[in-house]
Amino acid sequence: MKPIHRFNCACWSALALTGIITTAGAQDPLPSWNEGAAKRAIIHFVQTTTDSGSTNFVPPEERIATFDQDGTLWVEKPMYAQVMYCLDRVPAVVAAKPELKNVEPFKTVLSGNREAIARLSMKDLEKILMATLTGMTTDQFRSEVKKWLATAKDPRWHRPYPELTYQPMQEVLKYLRANGYKTYIVTGGGQDFVRVYAEQTYGIPPEQVVGTMGGVSYGYDQDGKPVLTKDPKLLLNDNNAGKPEGIHLMIGRQPYAAFGNSTGDREMLEYTKAGDGVRLAMLLLHDDVGREYAYGPAQGLPDSKVGTFTQELYDEAKHKGWTVISMKDDWKRIFSFD
Amino acid sequence: MKPIHRFNCACWSALALTGIITTAGAQDPLPSWNEGAAKRAIIHFVQTTTDSGSTNFVPPEERIATFDQDGTLWVEKPMYAQVMYCLDRVPAVVAAKPELKNVEPFKTVLSGNREAIARLSMKDLEKILMATLTGMTTDQFRSEVKKWLATAKDPRWHRPYPELTYQPMQEVLKYLRANGYKTYIVTGGGQDFVRVYAEQTYGIPPEQVVGTMGGVSYGYDQDGKPVLTKDPKLLLNDNNAGKPEGIHLMIGRQPYAAFGNSTGDREMLEYTKAGDGVRLAMLLLHDDVGREYAYGPAQGLPDSKVGTFTQELYDEAKHKGWTVISMKDDWKRIFSFD
Repeated sequence: MKPIHRFNCACWSALALTGIITTAGAQDPLPSWNEGAAKRAIIHFVQTTTDSGSTNFVPPEERIATFDQDGTLWVEKPMYAQVMYCLDRVPAVVAAKPELKNVEPFKTVLSGNREAIARLSMKDLEKILMATLTGMTTDQFRSEVKKWLATAKDPRWHRPYPELTYQPMQEVLKYLRANGYKTYIVTGGGQDFVRVYAEQTYGIPPEQVVGTMGGVSYGYDQDGKPVLTKDPKLLLNDNNAGKPEGIHLMIGRQPYAAFGNSTGDREMLEYTKAGDGVRLAMLLLHDDVGREYAYGPAQGLPDSKVGTFTQELYDEAKHKGWTVISMKDDWKRIFSFD
Repeated sequence: MKPIHRFNCACWSALALTGIITTAGAQDPLPSWNEGAAKRAIIHFVQTTTDSGSTNFVPPEERIATFDQDGTLWVEKPMYAQVMYCLDRVPAVVAAKPELKNVEPFKTVLSGNREAIARLSMKDLEKILMATLTGMTTDQFRSEVKKWLATAKDPRWHRPYPELTYQPMQEVLKYLRANGYKTYIVTGGGQDFVRVYAEQTYGIPPEQVVGTMGGVSYGYDQDGKPVLTKDPKLLLNDNNAGKPEGIHLMIGRQPYAAFGNSTGDREMLEYTKAGDGVRLAMLLLHDDVGREYAYGPAQGLPDSKVGTFTQELYDEAKHKGWTVISMKDDWKRIFSFD
């Protein structure tokens, strides 16, 4: 056994040395990343924008980094966690309004027929979202989502959704924050939904979650206590062009770094790169069918309705100097429990 | 001269002593405030919510304080600065669209007849706001507002508007921030307008300005560069019930402290006080005709369309334990140039 042990020791020393070289004497801030262009791009960006002697120096107050959530910070397959929540809430909605029992799309959801549910149209899905995400107070909603998060499990790993965050991205969040960057989530998901767990899951407070926004109405409960009720009124669809629009509304500054994984993030990355100086734009390609999922359709990967990453987007990224992260090649480790 | 000098010295020592007693050994954080209930309320609130041994302790991440702007942080009379901006922009708008020259309300504004301008209806004013606050890119708008702020002067003090901030409130902002509070502006004014100067004027970054929000549209300029264009579409009127609604959208947490000065702030204070634990709600009453203005109509002060503070609001404040700040009695000094 001894020679093997000694060999392992030598390996570890070599790895540590690489780490030291990469990060200029400091501890490796991104230990779950393999050495490569993606890791180098992140470290170079942070070093050059925080070095007061660099022409790329960014004043601390302007250090804004934005992250898509589903598929960028945590698993989005086979279906967005929020849609799972909405489907799971249908029985409670029907119990409160029994007249919906035999009305579509609620009838199909109640049937439990997975294939039929998967075939529901976008219009049907919208009806389910409206029925399960609006009409209650913000406090009631928060409490329902918390309850669900404590019990719901992902169908593949059988773990609560907040455990399915990507360890390499958690390291990027922490590394950016340690260097004075304010980290924001900019998600197509519901702003109120993501806020329930963002602080605990990512260390991102509610005021740094930008998402699809519905209106709320101020009023009073039966005891005269002020409440905010979630309205079935869409203020902002925080996808595609909605992402830079949401960033302007909620932050009012152009980000210096943006991370996404699908066509819905294209405009956010474009907007980020349009700013002066050095900006970082990164797209995560899910090309790891063994450890997670593989979908595109870029690079011949299977097509996907959830988290579509087209070849056109891939080509644009390569052409414009946005970095494509290969989950398979760039990530040493996917989850904290790996 | 000597006796007078000595007398002054004794006075200063006595004042310093009072300061020391008030703030328990520390330097007085609110030197522009007279000793009284208002100053005590602020200091007690900060001390009790930041003392980890207190049952009223508030974790740092939940320390949110919201401030109305016009009439709370700076002068709002005779007219809101933003309305002055819009009126001043009319000639440029008409130059770009000469067909508006003989159309109301632009014709009246161009006439320069102050009485006629003051008589413009709310609908006319809205037309002016739409024409001067929308239709341009966010960059063009920021640049126009900056230019205006550098030259426009208040009609009474003949100083740029950002100099007309209240020194006692600047001290409250700093005192709260020094104690871990995130300070937000929550204004009925335009979010994009206030963001142009909030950082320099109050140390409040754009992402902590909540205001009346218009939609923006993502697009491209003639060189293909991404731009955001300000739309004539109102997303949120950040007044009255709109203030807690805006706080939910932009912050997602209930504030622990809220400061206002008019009926438009009523719901924000009510919402703040509805939270658990110790919360601070304060209303500034402009009762100082000599040093600033006096208007209500609360407490027999002259009625005012700008910054209305009704007797009903005054009574509610007294009844519910919201603190009314008397500018005349509570403030030793109004402006930094005093």
